[in-house]
Amino acid sequence: MGKNRVEAFSDGVIAIIITIMVLELKVPRGESIQSLAPLIPVFLSYVLSFVYVGIYWNNHHHMLHTVHGVTGAMLWANLHLLFWLSLFPFVTGWMGENHFAPVPSAVYGVVLLMAAIAYRILQQIIIASQGHKSLLRKAVGSDWKGKLSPVVYFIAVIFAFWSHWISQALYVLVALIWLVPDRRIERVVGGEDT
Amino acid sequence: MGKNRVEAFSDGVIAIIITIMVLELKVPRGESIQSLAPLIPVFLSYVLSFVYVGIYWNNHHHMLHTVHGVTGAMLWANLHLLFWLSLFPFVTGWMGENHFAPVPSAVYGVVLLMAAIAYRILQQIIIASQGHKSLLRKAVGSDWKGKLSPVVYFIAVIFAFWSHWISQALYVLVALIWLVPDRRIERVVGGEDT
Amino acid sequence: MGKNRVEAFSDGVIAIIITIMVLELKVPRGESIQSLAPLIPVFLSYVLSFVYVGIYWNNHHHMLHTVHGVTGAMLWANLHLLFWLSLFPFVTGWMGENHFAPVPSAVYGVVLLMAAIAYRILQQIIIASQGHKSLLRKAVGSDWKGKLSPVVYFIAVIFAFWSHWISQALYVLVALIWLVPDRRIERVVGGEDT
Amino acid sequence: MGKNRVEAFSDGVIAIIITIMVLELKVPRGESIQSLAPLIPVFLSYVLSFVYVGIYWNNHHHMLHTVHGVTGAMLWANLHLLFWLSLFPFVTGWMGENHFAPVPSAVYGVVLLMAAIAYRILQQIIIASQGHKSLLRKAVGSDWKGKLSPVVYFIAVIFAFWSHWISQALYVLVALIWLVPDRRIERVVGGEDT
Repeated sequence: MGKNRVEAFSDGVIAIIITIMVLELKVPRGESIQSLAPLIPVFLSYVLSFVYVGIYWNNHHHMLHTVHGVTGAMLWANLHLLFWLSLFPFVTGWMGENHFAPVPSAVYGVVLLMAAIAYRILQQIIIASQGHKSLLRKAVGSDWKGKLSPVVYFIAVIFAFWSHWISQALYVLVALIWLVPDRRIERVVGGEDT
Repeated sequence: MGKNRVEAFSDGVIAIIITIMVLELKVPRGESIQSLAPLIPVFLSYVLSFVYVGIYWNNHHHMLHTVHGVTGAMLWANLHLLFWLSLFPFVTGWMGENHFAPVPSAVYGVVLLMAAIAYRILQQIIIASQGHKSLLRKAVGSDWKGKLSPVVYFIAVIFAFWSHWISQALYVLVALIWLVPDRRIERVVGGEDT
Repeated sequence: MGKNRVEAFSDGVIAIIITIMVLELKVPRGESIQSLAPLIPVFLSYVLSFVYVGIYWNNHHHMLHTVHGVTGAMLWANLHLLFWLSLFPFVTGWMGENHFAPVPSAVYGVVLLMAAIAYRILQQIIIASQGHKSLLRKAVGSDWKGKLSPVVYFIAVIFAFWSHWISQALYVLVALIWLVPDRRIERVVGGEDT
Repeated sequence: MGKNRVEAFSDGVIAIIITIMVLELKVPRGESIQSLAPLIPVFLSYVLSFVYVGIYWNNHHHMLHTVHGVTGAMLWANLHLLFWLSLFPFVTGWMGENHFAPVPSAVYGVVLLMAAIAYRILQQIIIASQGHKSLLRKAVGSDWKGKLSPVVYFIAVIFAFWSHWISQALYVLVALIWLVPDRRIERVVGGEDT
């Protein structure tokens, strides 16, 4: 089975997720600049989630680049990842509207954690399907980012109840770490590219 | 007529359906963990529908894989299927917000039933267009899943008025039966795949 | 310039239009079957619009099939068509929620009329660009459907103020006329198809 | 890395943005023609934004046409552009619902300005990646439109506080300037087209 429809479907879902998040930015009643003030935390959480979804799209793009045949297990692991990503608009809106309060910040971290785990499961299934000469395994290498991120999310979830600003700082930190796209895959794939 | 745009359009519609369902998960007012409690049934019905839409996408993907030329009848049978799928966000939200009450659970089953019938109509039209050497007919074989599901949905609709938990259990059961992707088609198509 | 992105973008917009119309079907508060009753006109107007958008997608699909090079004029004529289609969710919701009252029914007809005109403009631009051996001109032939529909919509808009049920009947009638996909193009294109 | 998924993802996001803007046109309560009156400014701002997003899609389409290999920097510059475009539904709704009041008109201009800057950054990154024989550099030439627009947006933002009708006129003016698609690129690319 070709991977085109998997890419097209994932692109569609991710494009919708990244766009409907903006619907949580409700048009305010007033026409003054002050009426925008309550939206600032919602806007900031939108920016953070936009970057995260962008990162997922970039890395997903790179990862699928190494895939030739799609199996049933990959399809479901991919849907599992899309499921957790689909909760981003909800947790983003909740965190933003409550000005980064402890519980919403923790729940945001839980969704980040689950998405990271889902991404890793998909990655492992692809690597397993490619056998011991797996291009993706070679590309991800030690995968320190993929191993570190869930740990940081977990710590951030715990910290949210103590000082939620530390959690926010950790979420921003992980986003910054990933902002560099997965050059490892670009490098390894480089030779045989279309 | 090529099938690419049919796939692209179906992917688009299904991607939007699976994503806008999450809009029924309304961001709660409070910031405590208790404020999430009323959303649990909405969340559970979202998970169930996400899995169902995922199953439809997977099987639709496999089914169209066997198609070479798209006819007008197929286009309309496909739109008919998409119509019933497009009602998933509505019935999912209604069932979730009413904590799986009898009537919404029955209506949910009716939409599942109609979608299953629409899927079967599309399948029969494709098989008929492929003549007696139909690849799809060979692939679906006895099609016991396709024959059993509508019967179970029908029973679940009836039971909803008596004990809606039985209905929910039946919906979950059918989803589990289908979660195994249609390996029949993978096997038959296997030889001539891209 | 290739036509792939024009097709992909149009498919995306049409897929979103056909799907967000269902958001006008607001989840009712009650859990009884009676609470669905007020939604019946909204549901019926949704079905009608779903069929119309499906017809536009089908015919758009056929029409672009005859196009090889996309010009700037075509891009804007296409966006103009998508603009009027994008108003379908609004007029569908307004007509449904007001139980097919005169003014909303007339406004619905105006949007149908404008979309039909926009479709025709796009068709003429494509035919003009193809010169006197235009495949599309040959395919549409006398184009009696394309000429009749705007006239019927215009009559229906006028009748809406007198008896809006006549308008509804006319809208359904035109939809039925178009439900037969544009076999003319299928026939003419048949020979040189991919 | 191929550019297909970048095009597909951008098309998806832009298609969703252009379509969800219409959701700000809330279905009115009444059924009379008067109940549409308060929607006129919302409708006009929708038309303006539809044209702007259409212009961005057209030019984006032309620009990516000159690209062969996509780099990480391009992916992020593209996401940056999509971010500002994703704020169009919000600012369009806010400006429309407040009848083009000064502050919302200025904020609308700020988003236009930021999108223009983001577009220019993406353009420069693509040109830089193509070396001194850049097809895109040749195509954009002096790029007077690209240089003029941000200046006009800036002026319009300032004027919004003094006379917001001048701002609106400037927004319409820039849209009209761009409505002519980027024939420069069409001309230059013409020779080597698919």
